[in-house]
Formats: sequence, C-alpha cells, structure tokens
Amino acid sequence: MKPYNVVINFESGTLDPGKRIIRKVSDVKNMFYDTQAAEELIQKGDPMVYEVIYADVPEEQGHLGHCTTIIYPGKIGNEYFLTKGHYHEKLSTAEIYFCLRGQGRLIMESTDGDCEVLEMFPGSASYIPPNWSHRTMNVGKELLVFYCIFPADAGHDYATIEEQGYPKLVVEIDGKVTVIDNPKRKNK
Amino acid sequence: MKPYNVVINFESGTLDPGKRIIRKVSDVKNMFYDTQAAEELIQKGDPMVYEVIYADVPEEQGHLGHCTTIIYPGKIGNEYFLTKGHYHEKLSTAEIYFCLRGQGRLIMESTDGDCEVLEMFPGSASYIPPNWSHRTMNVGKELLVFYCIFPADAGHDYATIEEQGYPKLVVEIDGKVTVIDNPKRKNK
Ligand SMILES: [Mn+2]
Ligand SMILES: [Mn+2]
Repeated sequence: MKPYNVVINFESGTLDPGKRIIRKVSDVKNMFYDTQAAEELIQKGDPMVYEVIYADVPEEQGHLGHCTTIIYPGKIGNEYFLTKGHYHEKLSTAEIYFCLRGQGRLIMESTDGDCEVLEMFPGSASYIPPNWSHRTMNVGKELLVFYCIFPADAGHDYATIEEQGYPKLVVEIDGKVTVIDNPKRKNK
Repeated sequence: MKPYNVVINFESGTLDPGKRIIRKVSDVKNMFYDTQAAEELIQKGDPMVYEVIYADVPEEQGHLGHCTTIIYPGKIGNEYFLTKGHYHEKLSTAEIYFCLRGQGRLIMESTDGDCEVLEMFPGSASYIPPNWSHRTMNVGKELLVFYCIFPADAGHDYATIEEQGYPKLVVEIDGKVTVIDNPKRKNK
C-alpha cells in the first residue's frame, strides 16, 4: 500500500476523496427522547442530521481509520441533533475527535457505567479511551465539524446504545445547553 | 482512565496540556547533507529547528499517541529544516499527519525501498501506511504545523534514518522546492 493524501475542508467538513454516509431523522429517530417530535420532523421532509465521510483504509490492526463527521444544527423536541453513538466491537480501542468548526458535546459511557461529557470547539482534541462508547451532538447554530481517528480494526457496535441510550441527555432549556438525567434510561 | 480534552492552537501549534520536546540544529545536524553549514549555524546560536508537543497517553496497544509538530522556517545550505525521521519500532503501525498551517513535504521510505514525497498544506491529511519511515520538512516562509496520530505502542526507531538517510533530498534550487537524489545515500 502506498502513502496518500486526503484533503479536509475546515469549513464544510468534506474529506476528499472519501465515501459519504448520510443520516436523516428517519435513520436516527430511535436515538431521541421525543419520538413523536421525530416522527413529525420525518413527515415534514426528513431532514439530514449528520454525514460521515470515510477515507479508504484497510480494516486491519496497525492501520488507522479516519473520517470527518458533519452534524447539522437542529433539535428534536429540546434535544440537539446527535449521532447514533457506538461502542467499538473491539472494546480495547481508543479514538480521537478533533473539532474543526462549531460547538458540540461528546457524551461517553464506560463499560463500568461511568458517564462523562466533554465540550467540543475548534481546536479541541478529545481522547476517548478504550472501553468508552461515544456520541456527539451539535449544540450550536452552525455546522459541527470534527475529524475522527481510530484503530482501523475497531469495528462498530451501534445496537447497545440504540437499546439502552445514555444515562444523560443534552438538551436546550431556557436557551442554554443543559445536561439532564435520561428518564428513559433502563438500568443495566 | 477517563476521557480528556487537549486544546490545539491552529496558528502556533501548541497542544495544551502537553509535554514539549525541542530540537535545535545541534540535535539534528547529522540529518543534513551540508554538515559544514550545520556547524556554522550551531556557532551562530544553534537555532530551534522544530518542536514536538505530546499529549499524555499510555504507550499500550489500542491507545492512540498524539502530538503536534511545529517546524520553523529555515534552511541548512539549500536543504529545508526537517525532522529527524524514523521508522516505528513496531513496523506494522500506520500514522496520520494532519496539516494545520504552512507548506511542507513529507518524505517516506518503505522497508521494500520505495520512496514517496507528499505535499503538506492546511487541510492535507497524509496517510503513512505500516512499514514506511517518515520525515517532514518546512518548505515555506512561516511555521509548518501538523497534528500526528499513531498507535500508542508504535515506538520510534531513529537510528536507521540517522545512518542511511533518505534516497531523496528536498532542497531549494532557484527559489523552488526541488526533489533531488541524495548523493550521500549508501546502498542498502
Ligand atoms: Mn468510534
Ligand atoms: Mn511516527
């Protein structure tokens, strides 16, 4: 395999050449607390929630997967637009989220049941250690753009988060970004 | 281990909190073709060539090492300021160099003897596959700043490059960035 360049646009979040995956409200509706508000938004045109653009890398140990993520500004009910969230199938693998544009939050839960929320802003590089699931939300009024790097053999387990959600929600209350307990969270 | 943020400054290249390593001309003089010009520069104050600022990460498989590198503008003879260059001790590990500021070149040689040179510019993310050594040079008039991510257990072998150099040099000829054969390169 030869070395190669991709070009990342700090404003739009495009990664070129890359493979784009699009997530609309209908793709992520189960992740939101207010499922009725999600259904209404789907009826009103099912807007885009986020995009991920992957660089081409072999999914093998020693390689590094890398992609950009672009989350659009928006809310469903009072909950900010968010990504599905996942554990790595290979739990012993870390990830770095390097924020290029916008304002976000990164919520993580460890396999031990600890929950942490970090702020994302241009220049923040968030270290997600092994054994922590991760989901991001756009809490600002413009695009949230970040660059993700992870061991290429990490794999993605989306089902666990889809089923149990996170212990906390990031919502807007009185115009402010607020972290509250998730009333729908099932005990593990 | 808990998740954490570091903050990267796109202009200055600082990574905070981080551990800073400084390389002056005297630290890298053996890497340059024109050793006499290097000696003269050491006598004239031994200026800084580059800095690396490391985030704190366990050097264990599954973790990701990350750091910024800041190369100052300058030349020794007609050869641009450059980093020592290294193979990973664990050869089967990749690395990504994400350029934030300036104009650079990334020279790489594989254990098979192939040599490649990529351009670095703001937004370029260069993929260095497993088994390729890597060195960077600042070919512009301002700082070259880039963010590096690598498997945390990769390790660094500087000795091989210090001994054999690269098959090519990146030099300035008639004001232009030019890649030439390295006259000092020993056959492997
Ligand atoms: Mn991940
Ligand atoms: Mn390296």
